[in-house]
Formats: sequence, structure tokens, C-alpha cells
Amino acid sequence: MTRLASFALAAACAAMSLPAAAQFAKPEDAIKYRQSALFVMSQHFGRLGAMANGRVPYDAAAAAANAEVVADMAKLPWAGFGAGTEGGKAKPEVWKEDAKFKERQQKLIEETGKLVVAAKAGNIDALKAQFGPTGASCKACHDSFRNQ
Amino acid sequence: MTRLASFALAAACAAMSLPAAAQFAKPEDAIKYRQSALFVMSQHFGRLGAMANGRVPYDAAAAAANAEVVADMAKLPWAGFGAGTEGGKAKPEVWKEDAKFKERQQKLIEETGKLVVAAKAGNIDALKAQFGPTGASCKACHDSFRNQ
Repeated sequence: MTRLASFALAAACAAMSLPAAAQFAKPEDAIKYRQSALFVMSQHFGRLGAMANGRVPYDAAAAAANAEVVADMAKLPWAGFGAGTEGGKAKPEVWKEDAKFKERQQKLIEETGKLVVAAKAGNIDALKAQFGPTGASCKACHDSFRNQ
Repeated sequence: MTRLASFALAAACAAMSLPAAAQFAKPEDAIKYRQSALFVMSQHFGRLGAMANGRVPYDAAAAAANAEVVADMAKLPWAGFGAGTEGGKAKPEVWKEDAKFKERQQKLIEETGKLVVAAKAGNIDALKAQFGPTGASCKACHDSFRNQ
């Protein structure tokens, strides 16, 4: 391979593996994106909490639908925390403790996956049992990576 | 049925059929919710546009994943336009032309459903063919119901 071809290939690979931030036109969009995804998630999670805590009547279909949105949204925000997107409520630790941050993301994704299963069980006890661990996975990440 | 029992039943039914706005703690949350869902959708739709217009290389897996998010998000914002949630960029027509607004929502949901099918076809021509009609369904709603 010539040096030029080698350089061209390296450049092409670099372009394909651009950090997630490169998916956003500007850092502000990445911040707005992650905040938006987390806010949508929080609203649907809150509705499950209202059922789990007896503030609104249990509705199996609504519980399943809300849990699906929570689990879908749980996968999204992380692409919005790329290099150069410091700001919002994010602590600097997001960009300093990558392995721990990724572990917390993964935990949330796992717990929200279990939440979908629990919500689809069709009884409030299953929902109640998984609501707490899911909320705990939100809190564990907030405690380490979000300013209050 | 006694008058009291009848009243209690009516109250219970009213509670179960509260307008969507009642899912939000305050009107500001409903506005933030719909704006958040639409922003997340726009970001993923924009990535499909970048592929369809040749600004980034076509990536079948990424196209399918982005289209899935677009279609999921397309179902969400409408619950955030309940009674008493006027504001943001929404025109007053949202609350005056309900049938037309719902028709535009339905059209977006249909077109984004087709977008998922097109994105999963695994070739850029299918994506290109459905990108335009989907974007047109965004624009049709914005033209009537969103202030610029």
C-alpha cells in the first residue's frame, strides 16, 4: 500500500469513527438532545411511579406503553455526551470517568429492560417490584454525574 | 343505581378520561415534553437526511436505527398539546382546528412508519424515496400549526 493510500484509508476510518458529538451540528444541540431524551424518559417514568405509589389507578396497558417509552429513551441520551459537549447539568466527571459513566448507562438500560417485562406482567406487584431498582439506577448516575 | 353511586361512577370515569394535559404536573412540563420529543425526532430525521442527500456515507444499520427512533418519537408529542398548554411555538390553531391537527399527526405517524420500512430495505434509493414524503408531512403540520 502506498503511503498516500494508507493515509486516505486512515482518514476514511477516522471519518467513520467520529465521536458521537459529530452527529450534532453544534455542542448546544448535543446538550439539548440529551436533556430532551432524559426529560421525555422522566415524564413516562413518573407516570409509572404514580401507579406504583397508588396516586393514579393501575392501568396495565398504560403501564406497558410507558415502560416501552422509558426503555427506548434510556438508550438515547449517551450519544449527546461526546467530547466538547460539556455543560448543562453534567459534571466534569462525565468526561473523566468514562468506564464508570458507561457502566451506569448500561445499568439503566438493563433495569429499564426489566421494567418493560414487569410492566407487561399485567399486575401492579410486578411493576412495584421493578420500579424501585429502576429509579435507583437513575439516582446512582445522577449522584455521580449530574449537578443538582 | 342511587344518585350518589351514579355520581361516584361519573367522577371515577371523569378521572380515567382526564385530558392528556393531566398527565403533566404543570403546563410548562407539557410544553417542554412536546418540544423535547420533537427535537429528538428532528435530530434523528436530520441524520437520515444527511445520508439521503449524500452529506454522509450511507449506512444501512444506522439508517434503520435512526428511522426507528423517528417513528417512535412521532407518536409522542401530541399528548403534550392538551387543553391549557398553549405556548411555545404552537399556533392557537392547535386548539381550534382539532380534526385537522389530528389528521396531520396521523399523516406523520404513517409516513414515519413507511420510513422505517424504507430504511430497513437496505438500499439508499428506498431511503431517498421516502425521505421527501416524510419531510413533507413535518412541513405540512409546521405550516399550519407552528410559528416560525
